[in-house]
Amino acid sequence: MNMDALVALCKRRGFLFQSSEIYGGINGFWDYGPLGVELKRNIREAWWYDNVTSHNELVVPPGAPSAFQMVGIDSTIIMHPQVWKCSGHYDLFHDYMVDCRETKKRYRYDQVQGRWVEYNGQRIFVTTEAVGDEALADVEHKALRFFNLRSKEADRLVWHSPLVSLTTVEDFSQVLAPDAKTLGTLTPPREFNLMFKTYVGALSGEENVAFLRPETAQGIFVNFKNVLDSTRVKIPFGIAQVGKSFRNEITPRYFTFRSREFEQMEIEFFCRPETSRAWYEYWRQRRFNWYISLGLASERLRLRDHSPDELSHYSCGTADVEYAFPFLAPGDFGELEGIAHRGDFDLRSHMEGKLIRKGNELVVELGPDGQPKYRGSGKDLTYFDEETRERFIPHVIEPSAGADRAALAFLCEAYAEDMVPDEKGVPTKRVVLRLHPRLAPIKVAVFPLVKKDGMPEIAQRIYADLKPHFNCFYDEKGAVGRRYRRQDEIGTPYCITVDSQTLQDDTVTVRDRDSLRQWRIKADDCVEVIRGLIRGTYVVPE
Amino acid sequence: MNMDALVALCKRRGFLFQSSEIYGGINGFWDYGPLGVELKRNIREAWWYDNVTSHNELVVPPGAPSAFQMVGIDSTIIMHPQVWKCSGHYDLFHDYMVDCRETKKRYRYDQVQGRWVEYNGQRIFVTTEAVGDEALADVEHKALRFFNLRSKEADRLVWHSPLVSLTTVEDFSQVLAPDAKTLGTLTPPREFNLMFKTYVGALSGEENVAFLRPETAQGIFVNFKNVLDSTRVKIPFGIAQVGKSFRNEITPRYFTFRSREFEQMEIEFFCRPETSRAWYEYWRQRRFNWYISLGLASERLRLRDHSPDELSHYSCGTADVEYAFPFLAPGDFGELEGIAHRGDFDLRSHMEGKLIRKGNELVVELGPDGQPKYRGSGKDLTYFDEETRERFIPHVIEPSAGADRAALAFLCEAYAEDMVPDEKGVPTKRVVLRLHPRLAPIKVAVFPLVKKDGMPEIAQRIYADLKPHFNCFYDEKGAVGRRYRRQDEIGTPYCITVDSQTLQDDTVTVRDRDSLRQWRIKADDCVEVIRGLIRGTYVVPE
Repeated sequence: MNMDALVALCKRRGFLFQSSEIYGGINGFWDYGPLGVELKRNIREAWWYDNVTSHNELVVPPGAPSAFQMVGIDSTIIMHPQVWKCSGHYDLFHDYMVDCRETKKRYRYDQVQGRWVEYNGQRIFVTTEAVGDEALADVEHKALRFFNLRSKEADRLVWHSPLVSLTTVEDFSQVLAPDAKTLGTLTPPREFNLMFKTYVGALSGEENVAFLRPETAQGIFVNFKNVLDSTRVKIPFGIAQVGKSFRNEITPRYFTFRSREFEQMEIEFFCRPETSRAWYEYWRQRRFNWYISLGLASERLRLRDHSPDELSHYSCGTADVEYAFPFLAPGDFGELEGIAHRGDFDLRSHMEGKLIRKGNELVVELGPDGQPKYRGSGKDLTYFDEETRERFIPHVIEPSAGADRAALAFLCEAYAEDMVPDEKGVPTKRVVLRLHPRLAPIKVAVFPLVKKDGMPEIAQRIYADLKPHFNCFYDEKGAVGRRYRRQDEIGTPYCITVDSQTLQDDTVTVRDRDSLRQWRIKADDCVEVIRGLIRGTYVVPE
Repeated sequence: MNMDALVALCKRRGFLFQSSEIYGGINGFWDYGPLGVELKRNIREAWWYDNVTSHNELVVPPGAPSAFQMVGIDSTIIMHPQVWKCSGHYDLFHDYMVDCRETKKRYRYDQVQGRWVEYNGQRIFVTTEAVGDEALADVEHKALRFFNLRSKEADRLVWHSPLVSLTTVEDFSQVLAPDAKTLGTLTPPREFNLMFKTYVGALSGEENVAFLRPETAQGIFVNFKNVLDSTRVKIPFGIAQVGKSFRNEITPRYFTFRSREFEQMEIEFFCRPETSRAWYEYWRQRRFNWYISLGLASERLRLRDHSPDELSHYSCGTADVEYAFPFLAPGDFGELEGIAHRGDFDLRSHMEGKLIRKGNELVVELGPDGQPKYRGSGKDLTYFDEETRERFIPHVIEPSAGADRAALAFLCEAYAEDMVPDEKGVPTKRVVLRLHPRLAPIKVAVFPLVKKDGMPEIAQRIYADLKPHFNCFYDEKGAVGRRYRRQDEIGTPYCITVDSQTLQDDTVTVRDRDSLRQWRIKADDCVEVIRGLIRGTYVVPE
């Protein structure tokens, strides 16, 4: 698909704007426009409805080890700083970066790659931030420029390696930084904590430091006991949360894919240690199926299990739901959601203090004084099972999804250009967003075929009938073919048209975005038909 | 009402928890528990539905000057810092605080009050942070302690003033700070900017400073042009947004009323200057009515017009929707929502730069170099009216509501204790949350009267029928009277009970929380009846 065309569409039709655009923008921040906010609301609502509101705790869902309960919470973005010390984010949540002394630009260490190349006896490592074919071309271009050669002299370069990561290079003295003209301008890699820091209260001293949460998950863990004490949940159960998180990414990029401010949809599912493997398998599959159910039903979606060396030191299993975003190199996938088996790591950390692995065990990390480096809350976060009379720290399965990445994947998957007959039957290019009806910002548009003979009045009455039930759009401007196209382009699944036949028999035409089929229904049935179409209980006739 | 009882209920039943409570909490931050998150979601959804989703742009709403359009957006919390310089928040958004050198405590200058009192020839100003009767008692208590007198010697104190604000005192040398033992420990008042500061990118230099938004409104203004360009909105129209904002309050207090992290629901309504007065009147009344429609229908709610000296320098009219929260002094009201006529102040600021009043005019504030102190975006934020062929800067009406304050007011208003007959007919105290059905976290609970004779199975089937439509709770534990009470206490408006008659005629009992009326309906009609009760189309029978 055509990513540039999608990005342009998103701006032109009000899905996504660069944040603070009138002031030149701010890198890594994106605003949702009038259609974007509805798309995102629909994603958020679909997630909450499917995982919380509609969850029936009395029946065993297909594939689940047992029935279970689900509740939600909404915790704050700024929490007590000790939360992040015990969770490990304060010490460990960082990327390595390298700076270029020449250009003052900054790069993520693991995102710079390059090739060793030799000319005239000089061997240098030419780098790029680009990926895929572009990377190869960029490296060649830069090597030619560095050695002052013309394109047709490219065969005088001797390449000594394929594209490899900068992390494979020990000495930077022969490295040509991605935007530099001279060699050896990169600093050694330095740690950079990804949490945004702020100060609570009027003083800027260390005791007032706080952080914007880099994930919503910890807000669930620190409320585990509150939820146990204030509801009747029994293990197994899940706590769900939707909310903003912040990561001070060194190199935000790929449209909204890697933003500094983003929205997460996370579940922490608490279960008995001995059933945790089965629950992990259940959530892993269930969450993958969720994306399929909302239209990511192509080979661009995959479920990938982490290899043992990718796993966090506390995780005994993690799988990613991934999507082959069109801006990535061919064959590359980007993460939509991670489903992690986290054992008892999180609850234990918040009881005892920050944990580290020692051999096969997790133990509290000690400071120089032999005391815990970061003291836990000391609160009892164990669970007492009334039936088995056992007390234990529950194990946790964490399905952690990104709402903005989901929105972007749904948009990428939905974007299509096809040829459809125009009003005269001539095949014409059409841009269409094939968004799932649950996700479409506008569910139905209502048109009078022409602006006369009382058609607008009837169409307005139908619009008024539909409006309390669905996000709905009324349009009487221009040729009806153009009006259809405008709706196709923003993903509106159904259009209702009032025409001359309506004046006779009170029927209207329904038109289906994807199949382009049109059929007539009673004007009074519009609400029921559209509801059925969205829910899948009414099928577009052949 | 009993505020302590409400606060205890909120924690016990999972409406509100102190943020990071297991780590001793963090002042001014609150988490919503399993029931709280549903209440807040319902408030947010009611606001969005009533103002955006269900808004019919083709008809003139009652009391409105004309029909109008409404769209939404969702902008980021961190924006370009220039936004806050031009909006005036960078220079002007501050409170004055005073510090106590003795106790290291900090107070908001305008929130300390006291009385002049004399004893034995020494005249001092004794202060308190308390309000109302408590303030008087606290001041007397502190005066006695300072002069080393016993309670029965209170008549030896000579009072020289009523309770007056600390701001009336010029010299602090004779002031006894609220928690101090010695005189003259307060520092002079100092400005304290209420915006949380952070750094974007890896450097902590001034060029990387950014702020957490103190209001969602500016995200709308800076997107005004984007919305115009990407939709077909024509003036008059409104842009709505719901999202978190942050204010580094010196003295967060009153439960969630003054929090440092809170959620706003704001509309910026753009109109022609000459109709702006009429639109102001319209929104002022409409927003007041909204709270009434959701149950704040008592003398505790009021709509108060600002007096001329309360108005911002750019506003030609502001009204507050206020609620007499029980934690305030008798007769005091707290703000739920402000509806402000903001003229063209905001759009002009973002075009031209920060504005100040000069005589009767708003002009760009200049720096020492004669250039704008804070440069605007330079973008054209005017509106061209195709019909009148005029170009102008729209005027703005801003209804700005706090979601957390609304939640708190709805809870306060809903909380009641009454006497209802228990199962034996004996009047018994009941705690009930009379929340509007639209706002109630759980809409309906389903009980089998006893755990036998197949009643649980029937009740579970009804629960399964209801679950896809409503937030719904199943309970089979304990006496049915106790189960009713547990639902009353969290505001569940309807309970459905399966009893022995159900086994005969397939009818169930519906019980109404407020009237306590019970009546029978067909088990198969549960979804329709509950839907009708919530929408008000089905009335509880006499």
